[in-house]
Amino acid sequence: MIRTIALLLAATSTAAFAQEAPPLLPPVPPAIVALQHAALADELGYKLAEDITTELGPRLDGTPAEARARDWAVARLRALGFANVHVEPFTIDGWTRGPESADVVAPYPQHLVIAALGNSASTGSRGITGQVVGFGSEQALEAAPDSAVRGKIVFVSHAMTRTQDGSGYGFFGGPRRQGPSVASRKGALAIVIRSIGTDHHRNPHSGVQTFAPGTRPIPAGALTIPDAEQLQRILSHAAQNGGQPVTMHLTLVSQSAQAPSGNVIAEIPGRDPSLPPVLVGGHLDSWDQGTGAIDDAAGVAITTAAASLVRSMGQPLRTIRIVWFGSEELGLFGGLDYQKRHGNQPHYALGESDFGSGRVWKVNSKLGKPREAEGRLLQAALAPLGIVPGSLEDAEGSDVGPMIAAGQPGVGLSQDGTYYFDYHHTPDDTFDKIDKADLQQNVAAWATVLAVLAGPIGSEPKRPAQR
Amino acid sequence: MIRTIALLLAATSTAAFAQEAPPLLPPVPPAIVALQHAALADELGYKLAEDITTELGPRLDGTPAEARARDWAVARLRALGFANVHVEPFTIDGWTRGPESADVVAPYPQHLVIAALGNSASTGSRGITGQVVGFGSEQALEAAPDSAVRGKIVFVSHAMTRTQDGSGYGFFGGPRRQGPSVASRKGALAIVIRSIGTDHHRNPHSGVQTFAPGTRPIPAGALTIPDAEQLQRILSHAAQNGGQPVTMHLTLVSQSAQAPSGNVIAEIPGRDPSLPPVLVGGHLDSWDQGTGAIDDAAGVAITTAAASLVRSMGQPLRTIRIVWFGSEELGLFGGLDYQKRHGNQPHYALGESDFGSGRVWKVNSKLGKPREAEGRLLQAALAPLGIVPGSLEDAEGSDVGPMIAAGQPGVGLSQDGTYYFDYHHTPDDTFDKIDKADLQQNVAAWATVLAVLAGPIGSEPKRPAQR
Repeated sequence: MIRTIALLLAATSTAAFAQEAPPLLPPVPPAIVALQHAALADELGYKLAEDITTELGPRLDGTPAEARARDWAVARLRALGFANVHVEPFTIDGWTRGPESADVVAPYPQHLVIAALGNSASTGSRGITGQVVGFGSEQALEAAPDSAVRGKIVFVSHAMTRTQDGSGYGFFGGPRRQGPSVASRKGALAIVIRSIGTDHHRNPHSGVQTFAPGTRPIPAGALTIPDAEQLQRILSHAAQNGGQPVTMHLTLVSQSAQAPSGNVIAEIPGRDPSLPPVLVGGHLDSWDQGTGAIDDAAGVAITTAAASLVRSMGQPLRTIRIVWFGSEELGLFGGLDYQKRHGNQPHYALGESDFGSGRVWKVNSKLGKPREAEGRLLQAALAPLGIVPGSLEDAEGSDVGPMIAAGQPGVGLSQDGTYYFDYHHTPDDTFDKIDKADLQQNVAAWATVLAVLAGPIGSEPKRPAQR
Repeated sequence: MIRTIALLLAATSTAAFAQEAPPLLPPVPPAIVALQHAALADELGYKLAEDITTELGPRLDGTPAEARARDWAVARLRALGFANVHVEPFTIDGWTRGPESADVVAPYPQHLVIAALGNSASTGSRGITGQVVGFGSEQALEAAPDSAVRGKIVFVSHAMTRTQDGSGYGFFGGPRRQGPSVASRKGALAIVIRSIGTDHHRNPHSGVQTFAPGTRPIPAGALTIPDAEQLQRILSHAAQNGGQPVTMHLTLVSQSAQAPSGNVIAEIPGRDPSLPPVLVGGHLDSWDQGTGAIDDAAGVAITTAAASLVRSMGQPLRTIRIVWFGSEELGLFGGLDYQKRHGNQPHYALGESDFGSGRVWKVNSKLGKPREAEGRLLQAALAPLGIVPGSLEDAEGSDVGPMIAAGQPGVGLSQDGTYYFDYHHTPDDTFDKIDKADLQQNVAAWATVLAVLAGPIGSEPKRPAQR
């Protein structure tokens, strides 16, 4: 009896962790192990992230700041010794922010901190005043009768919390992505949302939204999370103190116009130029409130430093193409332009780093059934960095996502995003949020991926890396 | 030999903790123990902090918002059943903030986040432009020749880090308190400092500074800590890239004028009105960027809830006087007005809560030699709350500080300030930063102090507390 219970307990206590033995992974070539070790100590990635955020600052899509960033990028990529450095220009539907403020007029007058969402309509400089009606979720707004919303300023909250994989962003991002269109359809005067984020600081999270076809653009802004909670308390106190209406004066000035943008491209030519290239990158543009450190100076810095390390070991078999995409934030313009130009050409693999600088904890790949052994080699080579083998039939990426979805091979390195949405799209996305050791683990991971995918590396570099 | 080593190790390992046996403390009356238990579960303090921050919002000294707060306070203190509720008005040297911004013009154009310091001169709405010269500390600025500073925008940094007792604020606050006067004396155009704080968010820490007699007021502002670090990097990169000068456009609009303020006073009359009162309180005014939750809605809420609890147990021997001081932030105006009116009247003790809502960890008192037994009873009564017995010859407090310094008896409860300077004087000083259990430990501590000092409590309350 006692023995039975003990067995039962043992079975129970391990049940949560029960799984099959891990897959047998292939041996990793010593040159790749050596490269990974060198990458963990290499400081180019951290330095690039510092330089981009310091010397360029914010780089909103289509602005002169983004144009200056492209010029800077071309010069820097050439100085780093990459080949074929050039810009592929395109035009975007631009949007820029003007003065913005939100003030509770009655019954408890006070200032709230707000930022317009991308593609918000402008209130004009004199602003608008309306009664606030609150909803706990985007679903609650959807379910409300039009009469509860018409002519009012809609406030929508959500319950997003921190997750390692950032999966809350999809579901709880509804107030930002769908909220403005739903509110407009129901006749709202404007919409203010609880910032899509997980912090408790007075920094609003902006981000793009696109009005659904046929809906009239209305002013749309994001309150900081403390301000959203304050507005909830104000609505609740006003209701308890005799049901007084809460009125808000809202100013969200903005402008929309066509604007120039572009992708910056650089290459490490492979020994066999006829082979499809391996593409890695991130996006150079950023939201306008911060300096775009984790979104996405980190990504371009990580992948560029990884490529630079591979180059310093010798010439790879396949060309490595680095893309610093432009205008990701306002609508994946850079990724879509690249796809339009190059989407029909085969790529050996596509990969992008665009989720901050947290450590990589999982590798996914989608190289196709005949190349699963290559996927397993990636898993084996990344495991020493603490990276869990993930799917062999799936990969992700923002700018490269549409091409992977269209059938091109891809590799995705999942980063720890526990704190990513504390800073994402806020004034707080600044260089001090990047941890050097975490970023260097990312560089080591991407250098490993490139070394595996770009094929055996020639014995000698063509020319020394200039840093 | 082994035994000798063991003894030696034992001696070494306890050396760091070696101290005298703790003092024998007197027994605590059961009524006080019961009050303390009740206070730990009482929610009035937390509710008051919520109501002040929600229904009043920011309450800068001398503004209409502070006047509205006084009216609200009178009504609320009466509703809570306190007696003799009234305002003692006074006039202050007011100062209010207007539009403000800081932009690096060259060589790396970008926007920085700034807030004017109290009593800053105004740049006027068109702002000023100047070359930035950086100093690592207020001491380094002091040591610089006037020629290095004259006509320039001075930037001063510091190395403040988190401490439990907040002691870094005194020493590292030099750039804010002395910096503007020193910079002015040396002929600077303006001064921008690294915010006096310990966070890494883009929320500037304001705070008062006063130009020394004979110095010309100049514009003076605080950059957020990430922005100050960014400016340091910009200065460093510019120096490395050919020694380019860094220029900044600075707009700090502000106004100074005489303005009305006042202290709000309420009492629990003692059974013997001829005895000197026990005074507790906090300050009702707050800086303008946040809602003054930890500075100092928490303090007035904690001490008022504590007094309310004492009252609900019956009438105390001595009168308890609650003061919600006005205009502490711009220069202790409320405390000094109270001292002018009442400083010559004896008080049984003075105490103030004005360091956030972190747990009390130490009790100090300065009741005078003949009343040391009372100080020991305070220590004994507070120990169950995890509070360390501190000095019997020292007490602190902002508004009550000058009166304690002038010889009146005082009690000081030291709060855990580890994170206080993450939020202090920033837009981030909002209700969500208050931890309910921590605040209620404060209420229990102050209720205990009042029960000990106000003397034996009568068996029945005069009238039920209305909450």
